[in-house]
Amino acid sequence: MSKIRVTVWNEFRHEKEEPAIAEIYPKGIHGAIADFLSECDDLEIRTATLDDPDHGIPNEVLDNTDVLVWWGHMHHDKVSDDRVAYIQKRVYAGGMGFVACHSAHHSKPFRALVGATGNLSWGDDCREIVWNLKPTHPIAAGVPDHFDLELEELYAEPFYIPTPDDLIFGAWYETGHIFRAGCTFTSGAGKIFYFQPGHEACRSFYNPHVQRIIKNGVHWAAPNEFGYAISDDAPFVHPVYKRDDK
Amino acid sequence: MSKIRVTVWNEFRHEKEEPAIAEIYPKGIHGAIADFLSECDDLEIRTATLDDPDHGIPNEVLDNTDVLVWWGHMHHDKVSDDRVAYIQKRVYAGGMGFVACHSAHHSKPFRALVGATGNLSWGDDCREIVWNLKPTHPIAAGVPDHFDLELEELYAEPFYIPTPDDLIFGAWYETGHIFRAGCTFTSGAGKIFYFQPGHEACRSFYNPHVQRIIKNGVHWAAPNEFGYAISDDAPFVHPVYKRDDK
Amino acid sequence: MSKIRVTVWNEFRHEKEEPAIAEIYPKGIHGAIADFLSECDDLEIRTATLDDPDHGIPNEVLDNTDVLVWWGHMHHDKVSDDRVAYIQKRVYAGGMGFVACHSAHHSKPFRALVGATGNLSWGDDCREIVWNLKPTHPIAAGVPDHFDLELEELYAEPFYIPTPDDLIFGAWYETGHIFRAGCTFTSGAGKIFYFQPGHEACRSFYNPHVQRIIKNGVHWAAPNEFGYAISDDAPFVHPVYKRDDK
Amino acid sequence: MSKIRVTVWNEFRHEKEEPAIAEIYPKGIHGAIADFLSECDDLEIRTATLDDPDHGIPNEVLDNTDVLVWWGHMHHDKVSDDRVAYIQKRVYAGGMGFVACHSAHHSKPFRALVGATGNLSWGDDCREIVWNLKPTHPIAAGVPDHFDLELEELYAEPFYIPTPDDLIFGAWYETGHIFRAGCTFTSGAGKIFYFQPGHEACRSFYNPHVQRIIKNGVHWAAPNEFGYAISDDAPFVHPVYKRDDK
Repeated sequence: MSKIRVTVWNEFRHEKEEPAIAEIYPKGIHGAIADFLSECDDLEIRTATLDDPDHGIPNEVLDNTDVLVWWGHMHHDKVSDDRVAYIQKRVYAGGMGFVACHSAHHSKPFRALVGATGNLSWGDDCREIVWNLKPTHPIAAGVPDHFDLELEELYAEPFYIPTPDDLIFGAWYETGHIFRAGCTFTSGAGKIFYFQPGHEACRSFYNPHVQRIIKNGVHWAAPNEFGYAISDDAPFVHPVYKRDDK
Repeated sequence: MSKIRVTVWNEFRHEKEEPAIAEIYPKGIHGAIADFLSECDDLEIRTATLDDPDHGIPNEVLDNTDVLVWWGHMHHDKVSDDRVAYIQKRVYAGGMGFVACHSAHHSKPFRALVGATGNLSWGDDCREIVWNLKPTHPIAAGVPDHFDLELEELYAEPFYIPTPDDLIFGAWYETGHIFRAGCTFTSGAGKIFYFQPGHEACRSFYNPHVQRIIKNGVHWAAPNEFGYAISDDAPFVHPVYKRDDK
Repeated sequence: MSKIRVTVWNEFRHEKEEPAIAEIYPKGIHGAIADFLSECDDLEIRTATLDDPDHGIPNEVLDNTDVLVWWGHMHHDKVSDDRVAYIQKRVYAGGMGFVACHSAHHSKPFRALVGATGNLSWGDDCREIVWNLKPTHPIAAGVPDHFDLELEELYAEPFYIPTPDDLIFGAWYETGHIFRAGCTFTSGAGKIFYFQPGHEACRSFYNPHVQRIIKNGVHWAAPNEFGYAISDDAPFVHPVYKRDDK
Repeated sequence: MSKIRVTVWNEFRHEKEEPAIAEIYPKGIHGAIADFLSECDDLEIRTATLDDPDHGIPNEVLDNTDVLVWWGHMHHDKVSDDRVAYIQKRVYAGGMGFVACHSAHHSKPFRALVGATGNLSWGDDCREIVWNLKPTHPIAAGVPDHFDLELEELYAEPFYIPTPDDLIFGAWYETGHIFRAGCTFTSGAGKIFYFQPGHEACRSFYNPHVQRIIKNGVHWAAPNEFGYAISDDAPFVHPVYKRDDK
């Protein structure tokens, strides 16, 4: 079977501008994600960042991407509408998967794909415990009942997303808040996974459970081997059954 | 209890341009819908059309609308983006309900609210049978297991919408097609109902079951008496629980 | 409109055997629930308990009940299978609503109605915060974003229920746990609501938000004015459409 | 990776008692299903039938089964409650998958696993068209928008099942009926797939799309390589977070 072609996209500004962040993620967040994803033999990984030409995701890259992993935070508005429209088309009509990490809840592509603001409440970093609410889901494979994150950014309900297809993980925070931390959505031929841990100032992308979940998410979101063609249109159709058949 | 304020919006071009349509709906489709909705004592109804100033839905009208019923077909693109944005805000943040009739699957507000193209397959008018798939849902109250529509426009799967919150009605067509004909969605504080029957050249809005369903849909989509405020933003929050709480 | 006929069922043993519990709920938990429900003019309320003949719910009582509210804890096994079967039939075929409070997650009727063990993890009483995850749902009407319960029994994930129709409330506990605290399910013509707060040793049934939620739950679970008949059988049917129609 | 151990269970009475059925399925329906499943290299297949000792599914067989495929029709009541209870436990606590074919909607294990009667309307065999409603689901991989079954038994709405996790296929019938023909459910650690085509007097198990769907269903329902342990109990738990944690 051919490999799943993954593009890991990162805003990559924090790491260049803030030494404390660069120390946590010396290769950038995209580098950290690419590193652990590369442990999977069936993935072929490339990275792209905001400041690359065409944000590193010209049509030919997206056309050859099966799953796009997205991390953005402070500069969502710098992402060109043209790239967002093409991502949306690739997901909807081409079945490209989309994995939205952490602050990508507010990214243009995520908002466009799920049709929601993605608004939430947020607060200072604190201890988080992630609970596994749907152990039968492929994204939860190998994930225990719960696991600890010593420090993560508080992302709290109310979280304004459409009713998810599946709610897989729930987050508990020391501050009294909870959050729907792992959710899936469908857009046409494409699958979308949102996962909350991954603040630039924390170390969640080094957590083995977080890594497992993102690996699972990438595999789950990938289009199947058969593909599925969707015309970006509303076609006129003729009867598939006629009274005088047979 | 105060009345539910309903605005019935109609493109209102077919009826002015095509005598055959005007004959079916002499007061316009909005007039026909308003007529049967006005049988409900708890509804206060006004109408608005594409060619009215601000399409008949300036901010002050939308601010005083609890449920917006929408019928559009050939001129979706004539609806100003500014009105769509305000509708979206009123639904999301203000809890205004939105009932999308028939070809409104392709209308700008519906597409914006559910984050999908709303694409479907369509074909010549034929006999349709509507099946009640969720009799416990308030929108199905008083609706039998199934009912007939002698002639409706064929709207067929694949229908590209997000996974609905509830699938209430399914359509069978003489041509061999089926369709998810009655679906609900959530957007922030607001509720959305899509219902398929209602082609301008057919007479479905005179069908008592269709009328019952749209009446039910309007009541279901209305915000509750308590309201619910959503800030169109992502607020910073402080702990609601502290270690040193008593 | 005729009133909604509510039967509040309680095991009613703790209150008779443990003075500390009797002090909290001097009229029994059923009495406390009946008290606040009776603030709603459209409800007609009766109570029933385990030690009543036929547990207070002979066929004629269930036949005249629109919504059955259930509280049980230590003596689930004392409830006769015959009563459970009749409850199940009344919900499934007759559309009687069922509101399961707290430890009713393990009651025979709840387990039969949702087809699951209802297993969960539990622990010592602690502080709980209830979060509103679906403000558009009728059961959440008038409920704020979150509210506090100073002391409730810890009920924690994993909670083994089918995927709920709607997840309305989520619970946060001081101990690091979370719980799907308010969930709905469908069984044939009937609606089911499970709500977690309500331990016999705590005072949650005096909390105005808990009261509001249970009031809402009763109204939501009630069958609609039209009723809906389901034969408890698999009927043979003839074509509703024939090639040579028309 | 080790193989998925599949047990195909069949009532196997029609084929022994009715020559016309034996002609269609000379090796029995289980033989036909086992034949096409054996085209998958990663499946290890055995069969079992009603008249085998312990119905061919003693504990040691079920303990070594990853996915149980079930076909039964006229003799559901002959299946011992003891076997049903053990199947239910294996699914719930052990994560065994369950694929219910056609008339298994009324089988004891299916009814126990989903907590519903599985009632539906049925009628004479007629032409059926199966529509693909969720092309992104693994069970729909390689399945076109729709496909024809020249003759199948009419299974029609209303179909009394809980709200499915996913509705993947919808059926259209020549008679004016529709049906939720492919649905998934969750029970504890286990996954359940119901699929409608497969009447003993028709030839659907020879249809390549039906075969593809059942192959997909078996792979989807299989537990993942990590397994997931569920205690069939409600354990007492201690805090996972304490105020005085660092």
